[in-house]
Amino acid sequence: MTKVMAVNAGSSTLKWQLFQMPEEQKIAGGMIDRLGKENAHFIVEYGDGQKIDQEEPITTHELAAAKILTRLKELGIVEHLEEITGVGHRVVAGGELFKSSTRITQQVLDQIKELKEYAPLHNAIEAYYIGVFQELLPHATQVAVFDTSFYSTLEPEDYLYSIDLDYYKRFRARKYGAHGTSHRYVSSRAAELMGKPAEDLKLITLHLGSGASISAIDGGKAVDTSMGFTPLAGITMGTRCGDIDPSLIPYLMQQLGITDINEFIDILNKKSGLLGLSGLSADMRDLEDTETTNERSALALSVFVNRVVKYVGAYVARLGGVDGIVFTAGSGENGIDLRQRIGDRLSAFGVKIDPERNHVRGKERLISTDDSKVTAFIIPTNEELMIARDTYALHVKDHKLN
Amino acid sequence: MTKVMAVNAGSSTLKWQLFQMPEEQKIAGGMIDRLGKENAHFIVEYGDGQKIDQEEPITTHELAAAKILTRLKELGIVEHLEEITGVGHRVVAGGELFKSSTRITQQVLDQIKELKEYAPLHNAIEAYYIGVFQELLPHATQVAVFDTSFYSTLEPEDYLYSIDLDYYKRFRARKYGAHGTSHRYVSSRAAELMGKPAEDLKLITLHLGSGASISAIDGGKAVDTSMGFTPLAGITMGTRCGDIDPSLIPYLMQQLGITDINEFIDILNKKSGLLGLSGLSADMRDLEDTETTNERSALALSVFVNRVVKYVGAYVARLGGVDGIVFTAGSGENGIDLRQRIGDRLSAFGVKIDPERNHVRGKERLISTDDSKVTAFIIPTNEELMIARDTYALHVKDHKLN
Repeated sequence: MTKVMAVNAGSSTLKWQLFQMPEEQKIAGGMIDRLGKENAHFIVEYGDGQKIDQEEPITTHELAAAKILTRLKELGIVEHLEEITGVGHRVVAGGELFKSSTRITQQVLDQIKELKEYAPLHNAIEAYYIGVFQELLPHATQVAVFDTSFYSTLEPEDYLYSIDLDYYKRFRARKYGAHGTSHRYVSSRAAELMGKPAEDLKLITLHLGSGASISAIDGGKAVDTSMGFTPLAGITMGTRCGDIDPSLIPYLMQQLGITDINEFIDILNKKSGLLGLSGLSADMRDLEDTETTNERSALALSVFVNRVVKYVGAYVARLGGVDGIVFTAGSGENGIDLRQRIGDRLSAFGVKIDPERNHVRGKERLISTDDSKVTAFIIPTNEELMIARDTYALHVKDHKLN
Repeated sequence: MTKVMAVNAGSSTLKWQLFQMPEEQKIAGGMIDRLGKENAHFIVEYGDGQKIDQEEPITTHELAAAKILTRLKELGIVEHLEEITGVGHRVVAGGELFKSSTRITQQVLDQIKELKEYAPLHNAIEAYYIGVFQELLPHATQVAVFDTSFYSTLEPEDYLYSIDLDYYKRFRARKYGAHGTSHRYVSSRAAELMGKPAEDLKLITLHLGSGASISAIDGGKAVDTSMGFTPLAGITMGTRCGDIDPSLIPYLMQQLGITDINEFIDILNKKSGLLGLSGLSADMRDLEDTETTNERSALALSVFVNRVVKYVGAYVARLGGVDGIVFTAGSGENGIDLRQRIGDRLSAFGVKIDPERNHVRGKERLISTDDSKVTAFIIPTNEELMIARDTYALHVKDHKLN
């Protein structure tokens, strides 16, 4: 009875899924939202469509993790906590240290903490949860699954910035990417759906969630991605600015009377993107709902679509062509109009979205027409399954079970 | 006998050309290089291939301008300085104030100076030379020809950054572009060479000089450009970094112990790009000469080509196709290998460079094969002629000569 838990922790959310391995059968999953608040939202789904959905105060990360485990026992999903033999943690930044998923030791945990400059919103909280689960499940193999490791295949011409090469050699300043586990999952799934070996395919994967990124994948290996040194770069995101002229930073700091650059980078991370443009919301759904009534909502959507279209074009050039594109994550899976708008703007590359096939939310589906030169899919991402797979594999290796 | 001088001033160079108008006949031209040094390089070309080429101390901008005018009289190219009825000045940054070339008044001059944040390396020196020529040629119509005005046709979805919209409304933080006079010239010339109205053409123009930028032009109007709020953004340049993750700035400042952001932006402007990557030179020719012996030269070239290719792809997407691409400026006009490498990487879009046609430096020429879906040209840029045209037109209007 080996069970593996996949943990995806953010500052105010904790998402998790429990898999029976090696069957890859999901036996429970859930999330805590508004974590830290008195009205935290606690959800568990399990069994045959059974669901717990309640509000309650969950004020600390320790409480959040403990509450999930306690509930798993109460519900009989887990008899003894020892059944959970592995916990896989999503970690945003792995730097150049981690080229694949890695079993956690004290040294690894320290290194994850040291990499926090690369992902100010993420690494610290992820490292914290690793510590929490180490205490709660001391017997389990803890594994870090890095969003960046998928990009360890990038060539220097793609990962280097046009700055003093010493900044790379001395300070590891380079492109690391993000959302790699998602892009890895949907690109391998796309190859399966296309019935071709990944080695023969040029794919562009669009992870369009609150954080958003686009990856170019050639023969199963990532060759470029819109995310940069940190997840601040690339396309327009919910609250992040994506690419800007670096000269804007001193100019706007001076105009705003901000003297601490970290304060301004914080604005670029948390108050920019769709939120900054619309002045209304970081959520694409809110913008679509108000597109006809609020000029700034329409503007934010236009900017977003335009940035996505240009990145796809850049990656068609980088790949020297494209066989398939994949939409995934929140807006990628659910944004019917959004996908159609993006697809229509890519018609010069031979992309033809079928409006009927595209009229679906959150389902794995082919959405291009039969005569589209480029195959287009919705593939709901499944980072948790990738995390569970990697975790189980390392658990097996660690315990020489095979 | 109306003559118009086009002036293109940099911090250590002063380039100029003198045209007989309205015939658009170039009657003399020259440049001063290493300006400010004891061994400044003074060149004048005139008449039937006659040339002055000497080294002499030219320590101030006033001396540089006066020396050119004195020499024009000494050589009999100009009998009286009053024959020079117009002086057109290249100005890098026109902000949102200047949507076309503009006759200089005190107010305009003040506004040019105020716009210096947008182009730290350029506007101040250009404004200075306007003052110098106003003193030396008080009777002449002085005109500012802005590199940015060609981009006044950009749509908000292309010129806005994904930051708080208030930063645009209050501080005019947006994309302005650069090299517009060059892109304007070569794109209109490409339409002539293609024998089609500009209105019917989708063009991508590659200005690849020490500063470098790529523009997307739809129906004769610029729709996007790689340059940003300042000329720091976009592709890899001689010494400028182009696009980077903004988070690199606080990270590298901390690593380097730099506390003044302007000091670091200066590094991004002056010690990055090809120079920073190669550790050797900002000059593409030096890198090509050492490509087989110096690993970092080869790396810098690869990064450069890769950035260019991706921007072209982005603009094919933005335009929804492309009819022609144009190479111009130093490396664009002279880089035989460079053009071939870029063209080969764009074959997925139907670009086919003919190696024989392409084997030329600095000549206007069709370089694509007859069966290339996309027409490719070398078009030596002629910003000076555009400046003279605009200046003459405003002079005529000003004096109601027509």
